[in-house]
Amino acid sequence: MVSDVSVDRLSVDAGLRARAAKVVPGGVYGHQSVTSLPSGYPQYMSRGLGSHVWDADGNEYIDLMCSWGPVILGHRHPGVEAAAARQAAEADCQNGPSARMVELAEAMTQMVDHADWAMFSKNGTDATTQCLTIARAATGRRKILVATGAYHGADPWCTPNPRGVLPEDRAHLVPYRYNDLASVDAAMAVVGDDLAGVVVSPIRHDISVDLELPDPAFAAGLRSLCNRSGAALILDDVRCGLRLHHGSSWEPLGVAPDLSAWSKAIANGYALGAILGRDSLREAARSIYTTGSFWFGAVSMAASLATLQILEDEDTVGRMVDIGSRLRRGLAEQAGAHGIDISLSGPVQMPFLTFAGDDDFALADVFARQAILGGVWLHPRHNWFVSGAMDEADVDQVLSVTDAAFGQVARSGSPS
Amino acid sequence: MVSDVSVDRLSVDAGLRARAAKVVPGGVYGHQSVTSLPSGYPQYMSRGLGSHVWDADGNEYIDLMCSWGPVILGHRHPGVEAAAARQAAEADCQNGPSARMVELAEAMTQMVDHADWAMFSKNGTDATTQCLTIARAATGRRKILVATGAYHGADPWCTPNPRGVLPEDRAHLVPYRYNDLASVDAAMAVVGDDLAGVVVSPIRHDISVDLELPDPAFAAGLRSLCNRSGAALILDDVRCGLRLHHGSSWEPLGVAPDLSAWSKAIANGYALGAILGRDSLREAARSIYTTGSFWFGAVSMAASLATLQILEDEDTVGRMVDIGSRLRRGLAEQAGAHGIDISLSGPVQMPFLTFAGDDDFALADVFARQAILGGVWLHPRHNWFVSGAMDEADVDQVLSVTDAAFGQVARSGSPS
Repeated sequence: MVSDVSVDRLSVDAGLRARAAKVVPGGVYGHQSVTSLPSGYPQYMSRGLGSHVWDADGNEYIDLMCSWGPVILGHRHPGVEAAAARQAAEADCQNGPSARMVELAEAMTQMVDHADWAMFSKNGTDATTQCLTIARAATGRRKILVATGAYHGADPWCTPNPRGVLPEDRAHLVPYRYNDLASVDAAMAVVGDDLAGVVVSPIRHDISVDLELPDPAFAAGLRSLCNRSGAALILDDVRCGLRLHHGSSWEPLGVAPDLSAWSKAIANGYALGAILGRDSLREAARSIYTTGSFWFGAVSMAASLATLQILEDEDTVGRMVDIGSRLRRGLAEQAGAHGIDISLSGPVQMPFLTFAGDDDFALADVFARQAILGGVWLHPRHNWFVSGAMDEADVDQVLSVTDAAFGQVARSGSPS
Repeated sequence: MVSDVSVDRLSVDAGLRARAAKVVPGGVYGHQSVTSLPSGYPQYMSRGLGSHVWDADGNEYIDLMCSWGPVILGHRHPGVEAAAARQAAEADCQNGPSARMVELAEAMTQMVDHADWAMFSKNGTDATTQCLTIARAATGRRKILVATGAYHGADPWCTPNPRGVLPEDRAHLVPYRYNDLASVDAAMAVVGDDLAGVVVSPIRHDISVDLELPDPAFAAGLRSLCNRSGAALILDDVRCGLRLHHGSSWEPLGVAPDLSAWSKAIANGYALGAILGRDSLREAARSIYTTGSFWFGAVSMAASLATLQILEDEDTVGRMVDIGSRLRRGLAEQAGAHGIDISLSGPVQMPFLTFAGDDDFALADVFARQAILGGVWLHPRHNWFVSGAMDEADVDQVLSVTDAAFGQVARSGSPS
């Protein structure tokens, strides 16, 4: 249902969509397509500053998506932008890497307990794919345990949509269920002595289902399995990395992976991927061939160095926990006051709101449509992201909008 | 053999290498590692401007590698940098794409004859991998013909080093020989009616062998095969794109692919990949899931828009042909004067120099070492790249250095 208000306020957006429909398959592809979102969502964005973003029509929003994770310090953080600009004034993509690569490898290996070395790339998918290749090179084995429903990127081996993908691309992936060691044992019966690695995300963050924190015994069990079998424990920290802990997301659990994949937030929106690994996998990492034309670009590495320093100096994780807690408390109180049964899952820095019995996300869409029209950019089917740029006033403004959104949900009645 | 001069002039570089050895597997991975190059090559670069680059110790070079292709207009081209800075002042990585995505899709589909639509990514490997996935989605078939020895990226299906890669990753690739239609026919005997696509580069540019221009009958034969079989002809224009023609590199041959992969030079060093396709493959492109956290970044797209406009306005291809011809003439004359039997292969914009009988590249290494010490950054085992920023004085300076390098080769004697 498109109301007049949404047509009026998104007229530039509509024009861009019409043009894109001619020259881009489906208008927009991938995770940023809003075709499955309720009307009222802008497809095209024009500007960001701190915790606020503007769409192509100039409508302003408080940003609860952080560009799907990367913008952890807020948009155009002055410290990050200054570091990037200083580097851009010298060079970015060159015949060889810059000193920034060495500095960043030093900074990340110092920051992350399990890391003895680092390699850089451009996408989260680059990083997860490299981890599998290194695990196989190190062990000479083929099987990789992957949690059912987990998202580890969009290459043929891991894309959630198998169109154009062959069975062979996933021939040696063996499924298990997150937080279920019995399912891991069952998978091992298939794997035998052919286990190269186990991929796991720090929390369960599958699309469209409540987030789930890791059972410490599950994490420890995967570590033990890898110790026993000589396989690599691969932590996919692409989405959670630096939001849960200033280091590997499983450090608070006391579980160290052998390899970890990073991207998204490590350079506050500049394109960068990374893998970190233990000494035991250094020779395997050295032995594979992996590269890209822009992988040694110095600007995103300079941005990352500044991002990591600011995150540490300002205790951004602590800041996001405080702000996220304020947001979660407010949402829970509002839902209660409106008599609505909701679930708020995930860490408070990466909250996900669902409505009880709302299997088709009809209520979530009602809520999200009210939010976007009220000036809050959140997602009805994916966890949100709190940034270090959000302040108490932002949260209070969000809550004034969500209160109205819960009211709309209450009026729209129970799910069918 | 490391001489005193190279130790002195690369002391900062040596310090960075020592630090990197501790925190990066092999010190540096991928194509930018200089471990296989003769001593005298800096590993770390610090600055670029126009046709000149500086290493971490401040040594200056005329750049004949263009960062391995991307920097087609020269380093920090003011028009490109201004467009990127204007965009960076607004936003880069956002919750959705920017208007730049639409503008760039329009610009590329206008520029390239075969293109009805565009999709963007970050790496050349992203682009080639997407092409395979789309071809398979479109046809429901599996087999992809790939030329033996060709480089199409560094994902498991295409990396030239199979460490950590499984036979299944390449199970449905069928080899043929570049410029050899009989070998294509032989491959088709294996493929039967299961052909999804044929991947081909505009010229043969395999590592460490003389470049080879396409036989027009070969290109036309691949086109006919794809027409007959309903498979996708995929042109990997990642390395050649925009250097041979302001459009698809096979437009001068009159052969249009169904899909083409682009990266490297399309944004003058900003990280961007693209695929272009025909309407007949639009629905297949829409149907696959492919994305990345930074794929919609507006800054690299703004840089690309500026790059494409400048390339057209300044007829950079024509300029590179003139400059490349001057360089090739000079090199040929010098080799003749020194009585050295060389091969200069490839288009003049992407020249590759080899020495007769120099199977182990011993003479190429002597030549390259003299060049790098003389202030010319070229590669002994990979084609070079001429940029639009090179002028006649640059070429004359290069030639004064290569004359001495040929002299050194002549003194070093015939290959063993």
